[in-house]
Amino acid sequence: MQKARASGSIDTFELTCLLWGNERIVEERRAAFKRVEKALGIYDSTKLPRCYSETSREDLFEQGLGMGKAYLDDMLEHNHEHFVWVTPRYNLVNASPFGHKAVLFEPAMEYNGTEEQKARWLPLARSGRILGTYSQTELGHGSFVRGIETTATFDPDSDEFVDGKPMPGIKMGDVGLKLGYNEAENGFASFDQVRIPRSQMLIAHSQLAREGTFTKDPLRAKLSYSVMLLVRGRMPGIFTVQLAQALTIATRYSVVRQQGLGPADALNTEASIFQYKHQHFRLMSMIAKTYAMFFGSRICDDQYDELREMQSKNDHSLLPSVHALTAGMKAYVTSEAADSAEDARKLCGGHGYMSISGLPDIVGALTGGATFEGENYVLWQQVGRHLLKQLDRLQDGEPIEPQVQYLADVEDPNIVCSAFGTQFLDPEVQLTIYRDRAHRLVVKAHSAIRASSKLPADAWNEHMMLLISASRAHTEYFILRSFIDTISSLPDTTSSSLRTVLNRTRSLFALSTIINPRTVDALSFVETAYADSPHLTTTQLDLIRSLVNGLLDQLLPEAIALTDAWDFSDASLCSALGMYDGNVYENIMRWVEQLPINQKAWQKGGVQEGWEKWVDPILKREIAKL
Amino acid sequence: MQKARASGSIDTFELTCLLWGNERIVEERRAAFKRVEKALGIYDSTKLPRCYSETSREDLFEQGLGMGKAYLDDMLEHNHEHFVWVTPRYNLVNASPFGHKAVLFEPAMEYNGTEEQKARWLPLARSGRILGTYSQTELGHGSFVRGIETTATFDPDSDEFVDGKPMPGIKMGDVGLKLGYNEAENGFASFDQVRIPRSQMLIAHSQLAREGTFTKDPLRAKLSYSVMLLVRGRMPGIFTVQLAQALTIATRYSVVRQQGLGPADALNTEASIFQYKHQHFRLMSMIAKTYAMFFGSRICDDQYDELREMQSKNDHSLLPSVHALTAGMKAYVTSEAADSAEDARKLCGGHGYMSISGLPDIVGALTGGATFEGENYVLWQQVGRHLLKQLDRLQDGEPIEPQVQYLADVEDPNIVCSAFGTQFLDPEVQLTIYRDRAHRLVVKAHSAIRASSKLPADAWNEHMMLLISASRAHTEYFILRSFIDTISSLPDTTSSSLRTVLNRTRSLFALSTIINPRTVDALSFVETAYADSPHLTTTQLDLIRSLVNGLLDQLLPEAIALTDAWDFSDASLCSALGMYDGNVYENIMRWVEQLPINQKAWQKGGVQEGWEKWVDPILKREIAKL
Repeated sequence: MQKARASGSIDTFELTCLLWGNERIVEERRAAFKRVEKALGIYDSTKLPRCYSETSREDLFEQGLGMGKAYLDDMLEHNHEHFVWVTPRYNLVNASPFGHKAVLFEPAMEYNGTEEQKARWLPLARSGRILGTYSQTELGHGSFVRGIETTATFDPDSDEFVDGKPMPGIKMGDVGLKLGYNEAENGFASFDQVRIPRSQMLIAHSQLAREGTFTKDPLRAKLSYSVMLLVRGRMPGIFTVQLAQALTIATRYSVVRQQGLGPADALNTEASIFQYKHQHFRLMSMIAKTYAMFFGSRICDDQYDELREMQSKNDHSLLPSVHALTAGMKAYVTSEAADSAEDARKLCGGHGYMSISGLPDIVGALTGGATFEGENYVLWQQVGRHLLKQLDRLQDGEPIEPQVQYLADVEDPNIVCSAFGTQFLDPEVQLTIYRDRAHRLVVKAHSAIRASSKLPADAWNEHMMLLISASRAHTEYFILRSFIDTISSLPDTTSSSLRTVLNRTRSLFALSTIINPRTVDALSFVETAYADSPHLTTTQLDLIRSLVNGLLDQLLPEAIALTDAWDFSDASLCSALGMYDGNVYENIMRWVEQLPINQKAWQKGGVQEGWEKWVDPILKREIAKL
Repeated sequence: MQKARASGSIDTFELTCLLWGNERIVEERRAAFKRVEKALGIYDSTKLPRCYSETSREDLFEQGLGMGKAYLDDMLEHNHEHFVWVTPRYNLVNASPFGHKAVLFEPAMEYNGTEEQKARWLPLARSGRILGTYSQTELGHGSFVRGIETTATFDPDSDEFVDGKPMPGIKMGDVGLKLGYNEAENGFASFDQVRIPRSQMLIAHSQLAREGTFTKDPLRAKLSYSVMLLVRGRMPGIFTVQLAQALTIATRYSVVRQQGLGPADALNTEASIFQYKHQHFRLMSMIAKTYAMFFGSRICDDQYDELREMQSKNDHSLLPSVHALTAGMKAYVTSEAADSAEDARKLCGGHGYMSISGLPDIVGALTGGATFEGENYVLWQQVGRHLLKQLDRLQDGEPIEPQVQYLADVEDPNIVCSAFGTQFLDPEVQLTIYRDRAHRLVVKAHSAIRASSKLPADAWNEHMMLLISASRAHTEYFILRSFIDTISSLPDTTSSSLRTVLNRTRSLFALSTIINPRTVDALSFVETAYADSPHLTTTQLDLIRSLVNGLLDQLLPEAIALTDAWDFSDASLCSALGMYDGNVYENIMRWVEQLPINQKAWQKGGVQEGWEKWVDPILKREIAKL
């Protein structure tokens, strides 16, 4: 591990500061994580974490409560926001029972409450004097919010809360273990004749009059969606970072793990598995994608902040494009992060299958993202609807959003790519390939749906897969563009070695995505409207494959630096495979020996629970027959 | 659900008999599952299964012991083999602590023991008088079997076994929770000066003489791999069936679940989610792939049986091709099954995220398959090595295996596909597309590696991704061919409605795989050696997309029949979402209400564990500051 760590050409700390903002933020974050990890008793990584030894539904939830209290205490005491969006394990905070506090409960009041309501409740909520949650989905409903038949609200009476019991008529419960997020309680609540004072509904944008009339403020109605947009908009960044955790674990393991005698069994000693091309290709291309998604997420965050700023001046003009952008980014990142984290887990072989690798939990958490805050296939259609409308506007001679300006600027996206050789390393060449692909797909989906002789809904359904491909390609173009823009706006003080590595990482993302066998919608990189004119020929694709191989070789020595730079603490990774020291086998055995199932058996001289009840009777019975 | 069930055109039982063999086997299986489910107390599906309420490491293992004893008792008492390869939940049996008995412990003795050893131990093992397991991988080793430094053996002294403790010098333990297979104990054993009598090593094929000389019988050495081949060869069939379980759950859920107002919000009432094209496309194309893999697995089983038959006559000529076939099938099926089951889980939205959906456990079990019994990327290279050798032989004018005969028969696989219209529904046209694609990739990988100026190992590593693509395409061609062969050899008594549905299912597999956005190695369906001559043009691809849409419409009414036909009992699915009755919401609530976390809270008037310790102090402290 030391050798691999020393092989990189960049200053890891420089990259860390670029990723998290600046040196002060990095130091603050480190201090905050350390305090909370000490408070939770997880700072000493020789100790088996409780989440691997106490795993009943009740145990995991209780651990979540402990974690939630620790980070809430730390934020209140030290006045910072490092755990507003993530837990100390880098889960989205609604993996904690206190997680809804700052990301849903307070924003819901802030965005949808009147000034009077905000003055009354917000200070109480912010200081932790009242705690709240968020209740939305019904048993028979999901993302179809309009179809919901019950209304749910919170009860601000602190007496009732301190009592810790639901009010009369409310039945609440947990849904049991889930694939992830088990530290939080995803529950159900049923309401039977529950009375809610009218004054306790959030009525900034819509009101129910005493006589029962429901009114909406049309100018402000758009703000109601802001809480949802806020959470959705933050998800790409958070899930990207969680993927970075999985890749950090897999990279450290791959450097240390030796297996076989090298490619084609040509060596005399066992080789680090990182040297095998299938491991190398998958790991490095996923690291490159993670950087791309991270920079894309940051630009997505900026756009959301700009929207909020404009909305505070009652200008909602950015809403459609930010809505489409966050929907696309959320769908893209959560799909890619879940798939990539699972592949990172597979890269750790049988050891990645053990819970103590930390990987099953990360994968479990990431796969949830594909469903919550808008099911991804629903979101892709929302992006698609936006793109089709923009193309309608363009055809009607109306102005369109800057994000889709390429639909107007480029005359024919079916033109074949003429690049050769190292021209494919040019960011503009790469961007053109992604842009024209998105353009071709948007136009194709638009023609198919708008020109169909079927009913609009039937045409939509028939070509839905095409529309989803168009939405995805549009988002992928945005991500590559963000990576390029980020590099070109790096501060002047950035070292040239870091610039070189980031440029190679960007090229690896752009080019490996085209030829990766597992790329989604790969055919669309070559298909054009003209039957016999592929956008990229086999010759060009093979050239790209060759360039990817070169980039992989150049970036292999940087792998540890590129993952160390994320600056994850051992406790946050919670992985016997992924600790900073690289002592994989020692760490595995140290944790395994502390497992209660082993401790109990060894105290009994090696006999496992269940032997007397289940195994012994078979042997005794069959032997007695002899 | 009743309406959806009635909409199919086929006799479900006819298909069930085709899948499992015949009517007698189907009835026997049903009876055996029912007996074991009753013995385990899981037959009554209104009761919450214990695996969802008692989830500590110890609890899950103890449940596994109980399950293992129940099915072992049933097989011994009723003299059948229905649970030799699968548990009553359709997991591969090494998900049970008794699972190694019939699939590894007995075959290891049978294949590698002398006649004397077999006579002594096999009857004891078969009758359950001695129980055994299998120990292979080391902490620092995986699939690189040659690199192992320890030898492990079993101890047949029944006194020691009834004692239930390891012998002196042996330390054993569990590795804790895993992503799946938690009913079994994946453990470790360390050996310190343990003495093993020479007579207790399996010495049919290799011997250690008293004076220390190690000798191998070269003629029979190849038999040593037979146990590994046996297990690997059975895995494709088992994992396909487990995927069928996930799809059965997702299909039943999709029929019942209503969400939104239909595509493009065009309806007045909520629509079954099955009607949305993205749900419909994914579900049906995965069902079709499952059928394809099932028939491919069955032919793979037949080939293994033929190999065993010939090997018993000391003819090992089939070994290389069966080895390559099982390696390819294992790698293909376990990858596809894991990805597809996870997609099936996503198709169930938030409900699929709950453990009680049964889906997280199925996904967790399936993802393990990509790693054990040969890591998939290692296996792909073994297939690749076989393919390259065969092409070497062909170029040297030597005879080649029947499985790769296409490399000799087809002159130029780069010829463009000339099919149009409904010609793409012709099985021969479909097969040609798959065959030529495999052919192109094998030739391309062969040229790249053999003609390289680099060292052979470096050339191998450089083009490893290409070689893997070639291996995969070769296997995918085998699977499509198996589907076509299965249909053409159906018994004459097969109804024409079943033939029609199976033909459409085969076409859906063949065509949707080409245009599915998530297809692996999609570009290779169009890339040829000639830069400007794609094998399939955009026009043809769009035609295929249109035919797929037609097949989806035709097969929608058959979805319940195609999944019911797998004949899974409710207890084996262990899913609140996937029960035969389709009463999803009632079943969810019935199970959730039985969860211990809820029962305990309700007994305490609604207060969860942890409230006093973690939540109350924050509220009290902050309120006291007021």
